[in-house]
Amino acid sequence: MMNKARLSRACWLSTSAWPLKPLHLQPLASAPSDLEIAQAQKPKPIAQLATEIGLHDEELSLHGKYKAKVALSVLNRLENAPQGKYVVVGGITPTPLGEGKTTCVMGLAQAFSAHLNTNSFACVRQPSQGPIFGIKGGAAGGGYAQAIPMDEFNMHLTGDIHAITAATNLLAAAIDARIFHESQLTDETLYARLVSNKCAPSQPKFTPAMQRRLGKLGIRGNDPAELSTCDRARFARLDIDPSTLTIKRVLDTNDRFLRQISIGHSPTEKGQVRSTGFDISVASEVMAILALARDMLDMRTRIGAIVVGFSRDGAAITADDIGVAGAMMALMKDALQPTLMQTLEGSPVFVHAGPFANIAHGNSSIIADKIALKLVGRDGVVVTEAGFGADMAIEKFCNIKCASSGLRPDCIVLVATVRALKMHGGGAPVVAGKPMPAEYLTERVDLVRTGCANLRAQVQIAASFGVPVVVAVSPFMQDSPAELDAIINEAKAAGATDAVVARYHALGGRGTVDLAEAVIAATSSPRCPFVPTYDLQSSIEAKVDAIVHMIYGGGGSDWSSLAKARASWYASKGFGDLPICMAKTQYSLSHDPALKGRPVDFIVPITDVRLFAGAGFLTVLTGDVATMPGLATRPSFHDIDVLPDGTITGLS
Amino acid sequence: MMNKARLSRACWLSTSAWPLKPLHLQPLASAPSDLEIAQAQKPKPIAQLATEIGLHDEELSLHGKYKAKVALSVLNRLENAPQGKYVVVGGITPTPLGEGKTTCVMGLAQAFSAHLNTNSFACVRQPSQGPIFGIKGGAAGGGYAQAIPMDEFNMHLTGDIHAITAATNLLAAAIDARIFHESQLTDETLYARLVSNKCAPSQPKFTPAMQRRLGKLGIRGNDPAELSTCDRARFARLDIDPSTLTIKRVLDTNDRFLRQISIGHSPTEKGQVRSTGFDISVASEVMAILALARDMLDMRTRIGAIVVGFSRDGAAITADDIGVAGAMMALMKDALQPTLMQTLEGSPVFVHAGPFANIAHGNSSIIADKIALKLVGRDGVVVTEAGFGADMAIEKFCNIKCASSGLRPDCIVLVATVRALKMHGGGAPVVAGKPMPAEYLTERVDLVRTGCANLRAQVQIAASFGVPVVVAVSPFMQDSPAELDAIINEAKAAGATDAVVARYHALGGRGTVDLAEAVIAATSSPRCPFVPTYDLQSSIEAKVDAIVHMIYGGGGSDWSSLAKARASWYASKGFGDLPICMAKTQYSLSHDPALKGRPVDFIVPITDVRLFAGAGFLTVLTGDVATMPGLATRPSFHDIDVLPDGTITGLS
Repeated sequence: MMNKARLSRACWLSTSAWPLKPLHLQPLASAPSDLEIAQAQKPKPIAQLATEIGLHDEELSLHGKYKAKVALSVLNRLENAPQGKYVVVGGITPTPLGEGKTTCVMGLAQAFSAHLNTNSFACVRQPSQGPIFGIKGGAAGGGYAQAIPMDEFNMHLTGDIHAITAATNLLAAAIDARIFHESQLTDETLYARLVSNKCAPSQPKFTPAMQRRLGKLGIRGNDPAELSTCDRARFARLDIDPSTLTIKRVLDTNDRFLRQISIGHSPTEKGQVRSTGFDISVASEVMAILALARDMLDMRTRIGAIVVGFSRDGAAITADDIGVAGAMMALMKDALQPTLMQTLEGSPVFVHAGPFANIAHGNSSIIADKIALKLVGRDGVVVTEAGFGADMAIEKFCNIKCASSGLRPDCIVLVATVRALKMHGGGAPVVAGKPMPAEYLTERVDLVRTGCANLRAQVQIAASFGVPVVVAVSPFMQDSPAELDAIINEAKAAGATDAVVARYHALGGRGTVDLAEAVIAATSSPRCPFVPTYDLQSSIEAKVDAIVHMIYGGGGSDWSSLAKARASWYASKGFGDLPICMAKTQYSLSHDPALKGRPVDFIVPITDVRLFAGAGFLTVLTGDVATMPGLATRPSFHDIDVLPDGTITGLS
Repeated sequence: MMNKARLSRACWLSTSAWPLKPLHLQPLASAPSDLEIAQAQKPKPIAQLATEIGLHDEELSLHGKYKAKVALSVLNRLENAPQGKYVVVGGITPTPLGEGKTTCVMGLAQAFSAHLNTNSFACVRQPSQGPIFGIKGGAAGGGYAQAIPMDEFNMHLTGDIHAITAATNLLAAAIDARIFHESQLTDETLYARLVSNKCAPSQPKFTPAMQRRLGKLGIRGNDPAELSTCDRARFARLDIDPSTLTIKRVLDTNDRFLRQISIGHSPTEKGQVRSTGFDISVASEVMAILALARDMLDMRTRIGAIVVGFSRDGAAITADDIGVAGAMMALMKDALQPTLMQTLEGSPVFVHAGPFANIAHGNSSIIADKIALKLVGRDGVVVTEAGFGADMAIEKFCNIKCASSGLRPDCIVLVATVRALKMHGGGAPVVAGKPMPAEYLTERVDLVRTGCANLRAQVQIAASFGVPVVVAVSPFMQDSPAELDAIINEAKAAGATDAVVARYHALGGRGTVDLAEAVIAATSSPRCPFVPTYDLQSSIEAKVDAIVHMIYGGGGSDWSSLAKARASWYASKGFGDLPICMAKTQYSLSHDPALKGRPVDFIVPITDVRLFAGAGFLTVLTGDVATMPGLATRPSFHDIDVLPDGTITGLS
C-alpha cells in the first residue's frame, strides 16, 4: 500500500508546484485551545499567499490583511488550464462528541502543501453565526489543523451571509408590500405608479425587468401609454394568493421564537395579518443559489427565477415579476467572489457559501471549487467538505452540487472517531454539565465494533456513487490501538479503498501525510462511472424513495397530505424534474435522531415539499426537522468577549 | 466680506498641508446621472490617499481597492496633535424635492482640499439599505460632489450595519430564549446549566460576565459549588417581565409588515406568544452606541449597559445580565473602525455609523470625527453632516453627540434651495408620476419669501447654540437671480453670519469655494459660549418642553398616559438625567408633516418614551412617527440591476 502510494506520489511531483512558503508549526503536547493555537500563529499577508499560488494582483480584493476576495475573471484566464484532483470529505453520523471534518480538510491541505510538495486547496463553508453563538462554537477546524485567523473566519468573514440575509428580506418585504398596495389600488392607479419615472415624471417607462415580464405575458409594446386596459391589469396586478407564499424571511441567528409568527398587526397594514416565519439564513434559497451559481449571469438568472408563490389563477410568481431581482443581485454580486484565507501551515483556503447540511444542501460553492481546481493545476488536489454523514451532504454533493457543476469527485474521505462509534454502539448519552461516562475513557472494543455498523453504512453510501472511499480515523488520547484497529478493519471490510489513522488535530499536516498518501493512491486507479442516486426524470416521490432506500437504508416513506398535494402541484407546474434536497436530522441515518448505529425498516415521514426554483431543487422536509434552530439554556455566547485591544476571547 | 475671508484663508495656509493629489474633474453641462458621474471618475487607490493624509500602513485595513477601515490606534499616536475646525452641515425642513446636505458636505471637502490647499475631511453616515431600495436611492451626495465609488458606498460598505443587525438580533433571541428556559426549569437546574463548562464538564465555572452579575447582586464566591440555594436562584433567575421588554429585533429593510408582529407561535415554544416588532437597524440602540462610543472599552461598557427590560421586582435587566454583551461586542469590534473613502476630487471621506435623523439621533460617529480632526491638523477643516432640518439632527448634534464627545462645532452650515422654500411658501405638492407644478419652473419670488419663514426658524435654531451659522443656497437651473437673492437676504436678516450660493452639484469643489471661504470667515471670529438647549438635571418633561419651545417653536407637549408612566418609571430607576432623543417627523418643525413653513402654537403629542441606557439617552416618540419605514407602490429597487461584468445600474 505505502509503496504504491509513494510511487503515485512521485508521478504527482510537478514542475508547476507553487513556490509556497509553509508556515512552521511546533505542536505542543499540552493541547492549548483552538483559539490559543490560532492566535499563536502569525499568518502570511494574504497578498503574499495569493502571489505564491499564481493569482494576479488585479484578481484580488483585500479585506483586511488576512482575507481577500478573488475575482471570477480568474476562471476566464485559466479557462484552458488543466484541473487537479477533487476530494470531498464527509463523515459518519455525527454525535455531540464531534468528528472534525473541517479539521480533516485543513489537515489534508496542510499535508499536501507543506509536507508533500503538492499544490492543494481547502474549500469550506462559511459558518453560520447561529451555531457559533449557540452550541457549536467556531468552525474553522481544530487543534493544529485550522483556517486562520479563526476569529475572522467565525465572525463576519467578508459579509456574504449578511448579503444573503439582506437580499432575502428585501424580497420578502417587497412581496408583502406589493400584495398590500395591490389591495388598496385600482388597476389603473397601480399601473400608473409602477411605470412612473422618478427622473422624468412626464415620461412613464418600463424598466428592463418590467419588459421581461411583458415578454413572459406575451404583451408587446415599449411605451406604457400604448397598452390596452386589459394588458395594463394583467401586467400590474400579480394577484398573489398569500396562502401559496413559500418565501420566508431569514436571520443568521438561532431565534426559536421567530419559527412561526404572525405579521401585519400594525394599524398601518389595515388588518392584513398573515402567518409566516423566519428561517436561518443558511437554509435560504439565496444561500443555495450562491453555492450553486456558475457565474454572475447564472446567479442573476437564478435569483430572477425564484418562485415566491402562485397567483390566484395558478401562475408561478417570480422575483423578476416582483421587479426586485436586480436589486437582490446588486446586494449579492460581491458575495459571488470566494474568500481566500490560509491554513495554520500557510496553504490556501477558500471559504464560500454555507448552506446547512441537514436543512439545506450542505456544500460550499461550486465557484470556489472550480477556481481552486484550476489554481492547483493538473497535479494538485482540492479538498472540499460535505457536512455531517455521507447520507446527508455527500448525497447532496453527488446528486445536487455535481449535477449543477458538471464535476465529479475523485475520492470521498469519511471521518470517524472511536468515541462517536462507541456512542453508535450503545454508549451512554453525553450530557453537558455531567462527567463523561466511563466507556468513552476506557478501552471498549465491543462498543466500537457494534458502532461500526454506522461506519459500514456510510462507506457503502459513499461507494454507491462509484467513487473510491478512504476512511480517516481521528484519534483521541484515550483511544487504544485495538479500538483504532477495529475501525480500520471494519472500514476496509465495508469496501473502503483504505483506512488510516490521521493525527491532524494533534500534529497538523505532519500527522496527515499517511492519509494524504492514501488519498493519492485511491485517486490513481482508473475511474469507475459516476452513479447518481436517481434519474431526474423520475417522479418526485420516486426520487425521494430512491434516497430513502439506497442512501438511508429505510423501508419507505409516508407522505402527509400537504406534502403529497405540494409535490403534485409542483410537478403539474413543470418543476417535477428538479433534484431533491432532503431536510432530515443529521443525528441518525433515519429521520429519528434517537436511532443510532444503522437503523433498518424505518418509514420516513415526509411532512412538506418546498420549491427552490432558482436554486434548482425541491426541498423535502422529513420528521420534526426545524429550519430555524434555537438557543439552549447555556449558549456558547456566554464564553465570548473582547479585550480592550480588540482581541476576541472564548471562541472555541 | 470676501476680503476678510481671503485674509483669514491666508492665515490658514499651513506648512502641514497634505501632499494630496486631487483628482481632476471636468463637469459636463448636460448633467449626467449621479451614477454616471461616479462611474466616470477613476478613484485613487485608497492606500495612496491614506498615505497622502498621513496614515501609517499598519493603521489601514483594506476592503477592496477603494475602501479601508482605519484603526483606532491612530488616536493614540496623534493624542497630542492639534485639532482642526469642526463644521456641521444641516438644512431647512426637507421636502420631497431634496436639498442635498451630503452633496454640500462633499462639495465643501472638495473645495478645501482640491481648491484651497486646506486639509479637509468629510464625515458622513453610512446609508441604510431601507431608503436606498425604497424611495431615496443613493446617499453618497450628488452631481459633481459625491463620495466614490458610489455603488460600494450604497451597498454593504464594510458591513457595519449588518454587524449591528446581527448583534441586536442576537440580544433579542437571547432574551426570548432565556425567558423560555426559565419558565421550563427549576432554579437548581437552571443554575447548573448556566454554570456548566463545555471544556471541563466536571468543573462548573462562572464566566467573567457572570462574575460581574454576581458583583452587581452583592454575591461573593468564585466557585459555583459554594453559592447558597437562595443566591443560586437570585443569580440564575432573571425573572424578566415580558411586558417591560423594550428591545426590538431589527432589519435594515423597509418592511412595514414587521412593524407589529406576534412571535412564538410554533408548538416548540409552548404557547409563549408575545407581541413585539422590528425596527429598522439604523434606529437601534446598537447603532446609537456605535455612533457615540469613544473607544473599544467604552463601546463594550455601553453594550453591556443596554437595559432590555425589568424584572418582576423592578430591577433593570441588562445585556450583561443576559451574558450576551461580550458576544455582541465580538460582532461589533470591527465596525468601530471608520471606513475611509474619497470624494470625486480625491479628498478623504469617513463613512461611519448611520442613525436616522427622525427616529434616531441622526449623526455620524464621534470616533470618525475625532480621528479626522487630528488628521487634518490645526489648520484643517472637518465637515460633518446632521440629518434633515436643524430642528432634527443639529439639535441632537449639540445636545447628544457633543455631550458625549466633549467637542463643539465651530460653524453650522444650513442648506436651502429655491424649490424647497417655494413649497414651504405654499407651492403645490409634488406627486410622483405627475408633471412638476408650474411654480417650481418659473420665477415666484413671493413664494420663496413666504417659505423663508422656515429658513429663518432653522437659522435661529442653529444660532441658539452659540455657533456661527452660514447658509448655503444650492441653485437649480430654473432658479432666478431674484429668487436666490431673496434667500440670501432673508438668511442674513435671520442672523446668519453669511449666506452664499454654492454650485457643488454642477461644479464640485470649484463651485463651493465661496461657501468654503464664508465658513472660514465665520470660524475666525472669537467663539461664543456653547449653549445646549437644556440642563441634563432637569426632569424628562422639562427637557422635552425645552426642545418643543426653543427648537420647534411649539406651544407645549401633550403626554399620553403611557409616555407619562414610562417617563416617571425611568426617572425613578435613575435614568432621568439622560439627554433626550426626539423621534419626530422631519417634514415639519412640528409633529405634523402637513404643517410647512413655520408653524406656531402647535402642541406636540408625546406617545411613548424608550430607554436607551447603553447609548445614553431617552427616545421620546411624537405623533405617528414609525420606527420601521415601508415600501411604496413603486420602490426604487425596480431601477436597479447588475450587468454580467458586475457593474451596478440604476442606482441614483
